[in-house]
Amino acid sequence: MEELEEYEYRPKNVKEIFIEMKNTAELMVDLAYSSVLFNEEDIAEEVLELEEYLDLLNYHLTVHAVLAARNPRDAEKITSILQMAHAIDDVSNAAADLAKMVLEGVELHPVIREAIMESEEVIGRFIVAPHSVLVGKTLEELDLASNTGVWLIAVRRGKRWIFAPDGDFKILANDVLIGRGTQTSIDYLKELARGIMKVVGNE
Amino acid sequence: MEELEEYEYRPKNVKEIFIEMKNTAELMVDLAYSSVLFNEEDIAEEVLELEEYLDLLNYHLTVHAVLAARNPRDAEKITSILQMAHAIDDVSNAAADLAKMVLEGVELHPVIREAIMESEEVIGRFIVAPHSVLVGKTLEELDLASNTGVWLIAVRRGKRWIFAPDGDFKILANDVLIGRGTQTSIDYLKELARGIMKVVGNE
Repeated sequence: MEELEEYEYRPKNVKEIFIEMKNTAELMVDLAYSSVLFNEEDIAEEVLELEEYLDLLNYHLTVHAVLAARNPRDAEKITSILQMAHAIDDVSNAAADLAKMVLEGVELHPVIREAIMESEEVIGRFIVAPHSVLVGKTLEELDLASNTGVWLIAVRRGKRWIFAPDGDFKILANDVLIGRGTQTSIDYLKELARGIMKVVGNE
Repeated sequence: MEELEEYEYRPKNVKEIFIEMKNTAELMVDLAYSSVLFNEEDIAEEVLELEEYLDLLNYHLTVHAVLAARNPRDAEKITSILQMAHAIDDVSNAAADLAKMVLEGVELHPVIREAIMESEEVIGRFIVAPHSVLVGKTLEELDLASNTGVWLIAVRRGKRWIFAPDGDFKILANDVLIGRGTQTSIDYLKELARGIMKVVGNE
């Protein structure tokens, strides 16, 4: 599977592992809510894969941390990293629990989807029209988070999902974007995706 | 205490309670990272107060949910709400664990603060200069999340903290804002707060 290769563990230092754990847990929460909202099993499965990846990161963090302690003062500081990693792991487990509800086909109360759509940070789905200003641009060029207030979580291209797309990712016509933001910013990106608005941010 | 009044429980329906739980848990995670990053005990204490409030919401949600079940199909759907609420509660507990590290004065490894500052979603602190374009504007007028990509978490005014400020909140000179966003959006809001940039978003 393409995704698994992407998550293969490459040796990192404690800081890099820690940053990756934080980013992964945040992505998992966003994806978990998306999987519930859109009843998307593929997204839910990705959450579970990320959970395994996070466990791997946590393991390597622990090994690094234990090796680094040289004296009691070191040990206290290093323990603080492990405590933090534990809290991040708890968040990722909660996200996995949400994703499992989707995979187990639990019949969800309609209130759940309404609540996800009406909370402060809303999740939106955007279909990119062929004449949208987004087409052919990379995420780095667009800088959607700063220019629209929408944080891109995942993209579906045909039957394929791309999770946490990076700056080099180029948007194509008919891509389906999933992102998080305020209702205003979601509405704005919808107009950009539909080709109604033609100017992104402060261009 | 002023904060406690704000959190007094008013009767709500299941959807309203659920939305409030989701928003509260998200705010708690943001505040928990902020308390760690800036070593702010006041913020950490707020996280613990929000945890109590979330427990109260969870209790009322359970009471409502149990009362609402009329038949086995109802019961399955309603159980899905309780499962989801449980996951949200797990997230809030993880946030509380982070906040407790600050309150217990655990000596934090420098890597933790570096990692929070270098992850995908960065937390920033902004001091509002008297000549900043932000001064005298309400959050609704500014719509910072959509116009700058920064999500405002808290404001310190003198010795007082305002958490999750709402749309009517008016920014004054010397307010200290704490917000979350990408590095680019954080840098942009910094320039606005300092009075270097004079135009907000698509004005």
